[in-house]
Amino acid sequence: MSAEIICVGTELLLGDILNTNAQFLAQQLADLGIPHYYQTVVGDNPGRIKQVMEIACSRSSILIFTGGLGPTPDDLTHETIADFFGTPLVEKPEIIENIAEKYARRGGEMAPSNRKQALIPQGADILANSLGTAPGIIWQPRPHLIILTFPGVPLEMHRMWQEIAVPYLKSQGWGKEIIYSRTLKFWGIAESALAEAAADFLNLSNPTVAPYASRGEVKLRVSALAESASAANLIIEPVAQQLQQIGGLNYFGADDDTLASVVGNLLQASGETLSVAESCTGGGLGYMLTTVAGSSAYFMGGIISYDNSLKINLLGVNSEDLATHGAVSHTVAKQMAKGVQKRLGTTWGLSITGIAGPGGGTDSKPVGLVYIGLAAPSDRAESFEHRFSPLQDRDLIRHFSASTALDHLRRQLLCN
Amino acid sequence: MSAEIICVGTELLLGDILNTNAQFLAQQLADLGIPHYYQTVVGDNPGRIKQVMEIACSRSSILIFTGGLGPTPDDLTHETIADFFGTPLVEKPEIIENIAEKYARRGGEMAPSNRKQALIPQGADILANSLGTAPGIIWQPRPHLIILTFPGVPLEMHRMWQEIAVPYLKSQGWGKEIIYSRTLKFWGIAESALAEAAADFLNLSNPTVAPYASRGEVKLRVSALAESASAANLIIEPVAQQLQQIGGLNYFGADDDTLASVVGNLLQASGETLSVAESCTGGGLGYMLTTVAGSSAYFMGGIISYDNSLKINLLGVNSEDLATHGAVSHTVAKQMAKGVQKRLGTTWGLSITGIAGPGGGTDSKPVGLVYIGLAAPSDRAESFEHRFSPLQDRDLIRHFSASTALDHLRRQLLCN
Repeated sequence: MSAEIICVGTELLLGDILNTNAQFLAQQLADLGIPHYYQTVVGDNPGRIKQVMEIACSRSSILIFTGGLGPTPDDLTHETIADFFGTPLVEKPEIIENIAEKYARRGGEMAPSNRKQALIPQGADILANSLGTAPGIIWQPRPHLIILTFPGVPLEMHRMWQEIAVPYLKSQGWGKEIIYSRTLKFWGIAESALAEAAADFLNLSNPTVAPYASRGEVKLRVSALAESASAANLIIEPVAQQLQQIGGLNYFGADDDTLASVVGNLLQASGETLSVAESCTGGGLGYMLTTVAGSSAYFMGGIISYDNSLKINLLGVNSEDLATHGAVSHTVAKQMAKGVQKRLGTTWGLSITGIAGPGGGTDSKPVGLVYIGLAAPSDRAESFEHRFSPLQDRDLIRHFSASTALDHLRRQLLCN
Repeated sequence: MSAEIICVGTELLLGDILNTNAQFLAQQLADLGIPHYYQTVVGDNPGRIKQVMEIACSRSSILIFTGGLGPTPDDLTHETIADFFGTPLVEKPEIIENIAEKYARRGGEMAPSNRKQALIPQGADILANSLGTAPGIIWQPRPHLIILTFPGVPLEMHRMWQEIAVPYLKSQGWGKEIIYSRTLKFWGIAESALAEAAADFLNLSNPTVAPYASRGEVKLRVSALAESASAANLIIEPVAQQLQQIGGLNYFGADDDTLASVVGNLLQASGETLSVAESCTGGGLGYMLTTVAGSSAYFMGGIISYDNSLKINLLGVNSEDLATHGAVSHTVAKQMAKGVQKRLGTTWGLSITGIAGPGGGTDSKPVGLVYIGLAAPSDRAESFEHRFSPLQDRDLIRHFSASTALDHLRRQLLCN
């Protein structure tokens, strides 16, 4: 018994999109302990899809399809699967109702082409899509063969997998021993430095510890194979504690924690409030803070002082200091933070001013130079200089800037 | 004659890494006009690799392997390929020299395990790796079959592809005709509606027209097979023009254009400026506008009035109106837009106030209800109500809100 992933879509063959679905499903299968030896990508072509099915049916017992469930003529997955097994398609009224309802809620009307999405192979069950219009199927077309189909839209696919496919696969006897993971998150340390510091742990077998990094965030994933979440927790906890100690203040949270949510929890615990003054990030710091539902409890708002005149008029930055030191300076960062803190009447004020590039850099102030200002309740203001690599792109420099600003505040809140 | 991509690596089957190599190679093959119908991922297992080769050799004439060229015992790609064709491995002294030299340059010594990397199938040519230690091969084990192997490290693979594989494939007659594409972008129309309106075009063969959608943006990609960019342009242009007409005002740009860049170009052309007032997006609209380098020419900044007190104190929203209509209302959206326009002295003012969820919704004001305010130069202010699906997550509702705000401004700028 093993599973095989079949991703359908000419856009994958043209390299237009990255196949994140295959990675998601692969991780999920690993977590459920379902063996998985092959992944195939094939275009929206019935003949070739059938050829791939022929091969897959001969070597695997769970076929997981993604893509090709949309309303357009090139979406052919269900039609082709039915044809392969010589089964007719039947129209499911409940799917049509569901799609029509979704359109109605948005104040629109279902397009005639959406009717096509209600056709599924006779005998198959609907794998409901709570977010989009394309349902998938769960089907056993013959003994010892399970077919699951999902739309290509990652968000929809993830939800359907978690809500329906996982319980179904468990009901089929899979996932008795499951891999449970906790991801520890760090900011302010390089992946290689953390991996070296945690070298002894990287050779463990249960739990395993694996390092990852993306966009400045470094992670250690601690995974345990166990019969239950609580049993896994007993295996994971002592190792996680030691790894947190190794990380020190660089450790900021686990799993769904983000710098924004951790800062939010700290502010909320102390009943304090925050405002932001942003230049090069243009609102990105406020946006990051407000990814957290409920952030209105501590985040009051901010001023996007993209133009220098606003730094003077709205934030009260001294115009002479601005002329002398330039907008990208310790002095201006501190005045921006104090200005927004005062103007918005918040406990803390956090500011960012920098050169995100690609233009605007000079020898003395290169692209990637960013100052972060932090105004504390005590009327004390600090600023921090960062030199992100000018080889990074604008997007990444702005992401590093906003994240690093949150990290400075986090460390201050922890040490207060 | 078609190519097939075979990615070897158990880490791909475990979902530990994202298969960016398949996307890179797919794009490259498309650009060279080499047909490509299948991609396979298989683990570091000789039996299964051979099974995949058996299938691939029966349907494709160029097999492109990535991964499994390293020095560790589980790196078996070359060994397995040689075995599949019944060809012995031979040790290439020039590879050993090259690896030893690379170690020496870094001040290290070649590990004994690296010797393995010098073994390639008899008759194969070395596909040199200028960055890493793992060379690939170029081999014609039999007539009408070409095998290319690359290491899994993306940077090394890309370099080897560009420097050696592309010239080789061109010498074999490929790349005379290349696929050139233009992607037309639309906002404000569903993928299904656009596909229906453009149905006649979806069956063309040169250029081809294919619809895509992601996060509210709908795209039509027009692709032409031609000998040069200018020849392709002659094929693409008339079709693109007709598709733009079909899209009408929903069409906003092509290729690298974004709603933010298009709005920016329109503002810059008319010498006008913009400021924003954001509530539920928390800075996301400003962040989106400033993704465009050079946006300081027209974007002055804004006010993140996340807390209602800031709507009153900084934006001049009438406190009675706020109490009567609520923060999420036509009235407040308009007053926010006029307030920021006046306070920041800009030509236009754009505001967003809404309920991003998951909490905070009521029967009369559900999650997904968003008002966008637009203050025009004429002292006229408008507002627009949107009801995004409450089933979407907070992130998507905020993304739709900011994008839709830009789209309203775009339409106003076009009609002015």
